[in-house]
Amino acid sequence: MASLAACICCTDVGPRTDISSRSSYSSTTFRFPPPLRTATAALRTRPATFASAQRRLPRPPCVMEVDTCPSPAAEPAPAEAEAFDFKGYMLRKAAAVNSALDEAVPLVHPERFYEAMRYSLLAGGKRVRPVLCLAACEVSGGRDACAMPAAVAVEMIHTMSLIHDDLPIMDDDDFRRGRPSCHRAFDEPIALLAGDALPFLAFGHLADPASYPADGSVPPDRIVRAVSELARCAGAGGLVAGQVADMEATGLGSHVSLDQLEFIHLHKTAALLEASVVIGAIVGGASDHQIEQLRNYARCIGLLFQVVDDILDVTKSSEELGKTAGKDLASDKTTYPKLLGLEKSREFAEELLKDSKEQLAGFDPIKAAPLLHLANYIADRQK
Amino acid sequence: MASLAACICCTDVGPRTDISSRSSYSSTTFRFPPPLRTATAALRTRPATFASAQRRLPRPPCVMEVDTCPSPAAEPAPAEAEAFDFKGYMLRKAAAVNSALDEAVPLVHPERFYEAMRYSLLAGGKRVRPVLCLAACEVSGGRDACAMPAAVAVEMIHTMSLIHDDLPIMDDDDFRRGRPSCHRAFDEPIALLAGDALPFLAFGHLADPASYPADGSVPPDRIVRAVSELARCAGAGGLVAGQVADMEATGLGSHVSLDQLEFIHLHKTAALLEASVVIGAIVGGASDHQIEQLRNYARCIGLLFQVVDDILDVTKSSEELGKTAGKDLASDKTTYPKLLGLEKSREFAEELLKDSKEQLAGFDPIKAAPLLHLANYIADRQK
Repeated sequence: MASLAACICCTDVGPRTDISSRSSYSSTTFRFPPPLRTATAALRTRPATFASAQRRLPRPPCVMEVDTCPSPAAEPAPAEAEAFDFKGYMLRKAAAVNSALDEAVPLVHPERFYEAMRYSLLAGGKRVRPVLCLAACEVSGGRDACAMPAAVAVEMIHTMSLIHDDLPIMDDDDFRRGRPSCHRAFDEPIALLAGDALPFLAFGHLADPASYPADGSVPPDRIVRAVSELARCAGAGGLVAGQVADMEATGLGSHVSLDQLEFIHLHKTAALLEASVVIGAIVGGASDHQIEQLRNYARCIGLLFQVVDDILDVTKSSEELGKTAGKDLASDKTTYPKLLGLEKSREFAEELLKDSKEQLAGFDPIKAAPLLHLANYIADRQK
Repeated sequence: MASLAACICCTDVGPRTDISSRSSYSSTTFRFPPPLRTATAALRTRPATFASAQRRLPRPPCVMEVDTCPSPAAEPAPAEAEAFDFKGYMLRKAAAVNSALDEAVPLVHPERFYEAMRYSLLAGGKRVRPVLCLAACEVSGGRDACAMPAAVAVEMIHTMSLIHDDLPIMDDDDFRRGRPSCHRAFDEPIALLAGDALPFLAFGHLADPASYPADGSVPPDRIVRAVSELARCAGAGGLVAGQVADMEATGLGSHVSLDQLEFIHLHKTAALLEASVVIGAIVGGASDHQIEQLRNYARCIGLLFQVVDDILDVTKSSEELGKTAGKDLASDKTTYPKLLGLEKSREFAEELLKDSKEQLAGFDPIKAAPLLHLANYIADRQK
């Protein structure tokens, strides 16, 4: 972690940590994920190098400098070397999430509307976000029952974004997960309203005391904090802002700067992963310091997800990907390979993977194993 | 209150109270607003007369039978007779709400997107919902600072519903409040995303501890309860469900039953008024019994709002209304006058106004004056 001079517990004031001193990126200003602290804070404090941020912003009292953290992450984390049935873990957790989602949205009146929500919500997928949420709760000392309402909530919001993204006035996609998209299977007004309703279901589920174990293991202050985090990461300061920025950048090709590209992906892709991990940690009882470590982990894997996506788009065939390859190039979409070249994009991905794992230092390696393997999974996926 | 045999504190189990015994409605089964308790509960327990509900559902222990309540409401409530500067009250509160909304959504990056949210959010209007929220807080013993985050939240969600309603795939309205609707002033994708983001801003504002007085007068358990109520009333069990039902009933004219019509309006119109009042009461520190009284008040004025709207549509000219009169008739929209006739619709409106005021019995008449006058305002409006 030597390249990171910032203090983890200060990340909510330093807009972005310049990691341009890293050997392989000396000519390019990479930025460590900025804090997405409030709906507007991240936007008020526009990207800046860590050095300039240091001059501009007072640093709050630090609990611990990252540089001085005992970091076992330079060596492979113990859990990584041990046997961990990642596939089995993902399947078990996804099944539990599917069951909770099914229960959370029963088929009631108006039936066609509920059908539409269920159609999109129960369409399958790997449930990466809810599983991240459960894993973050687990590493923070909580159990699945504490995090399931949050896990369900993030998947509902993810589904809302997919339904609205597919609408003709947005991406106009006729298919999603191999079957007709919501507005094709139903109609556009129903798809719009199904998408509209899902965030309310999400917050309702997250804030309903009946969603939680009756033993009071998730007290109201944690729930309030989780609601606040989810709202911030999913809304005008997070996911939706990323969708807007992405839309505005469409067609601009290489005129989009690295800063803009990072803004898009940190908001459109990473923010909901951040919410998933952070609210899992909150309901699980993580300390503030642990929450910030896990937040950084989530931001790293969020960007990693996108960098890998961009690399796959130019290195794999349509057959290998199961979707149209070279789509980004054809649509003049700005990507990391386009701005940095393929080799530097790969190096950036490696760096992000390494950074994400380093954030798990200090946690029980057995309990951190799912998060560690989730990072590997995101880095290594071939489609 | 003699016509209401139900117990106020039991309204969350008896789906609907049959008030068909009321003299003027003996041939028609009017239903007292059902509880919209959870996102789906109201829909699982479909409309039923009070008598059949009594047979079907066990009644929980009662705190107080409404029939046995000391009810000063048979006489005009004291506050009603006294001088109350309602116009001045509305103007003062609306100005405070406008200022809070302005502050809650600053113009930041991506600017055009924030501009779109601000354009619709700050377009004026009487701010009936947020003022109801502040008034409910006041009557419950709280002060405006405790309820302003909730007031801002309900207005944000109301605005979201207007932006999405106006989209071409919905009502296709080019104008809203005398100026181009959001998608006309900006474009459809921006309007969609502005609408998407507003509920997140709403919940973020409602759950942000920084939104509240620092003296801890609004503890986390109240905030959680407010989030849960707002999510339920605005989402798939409330406002959005009403929009769907309204859409499905469009063009069916007199084939829509009174039950269906009531479902539409209790969800599409009354639910957000209910949320406004109930979450104001919650953050203001109302007791459970008071919350249920205020919930019933809100449901009554919610239905009243719609009945009056329907009456005005057939009794006023376009000039008097400031919008197209007779629109409901032309669009074969089901209305109360169409189903009941004009005279019975007027009687129903009077009954709802009377019932709404009766729910305010037991509250400090001075503090209840704004709610009482708000009910009069909704009943007496001429456009």
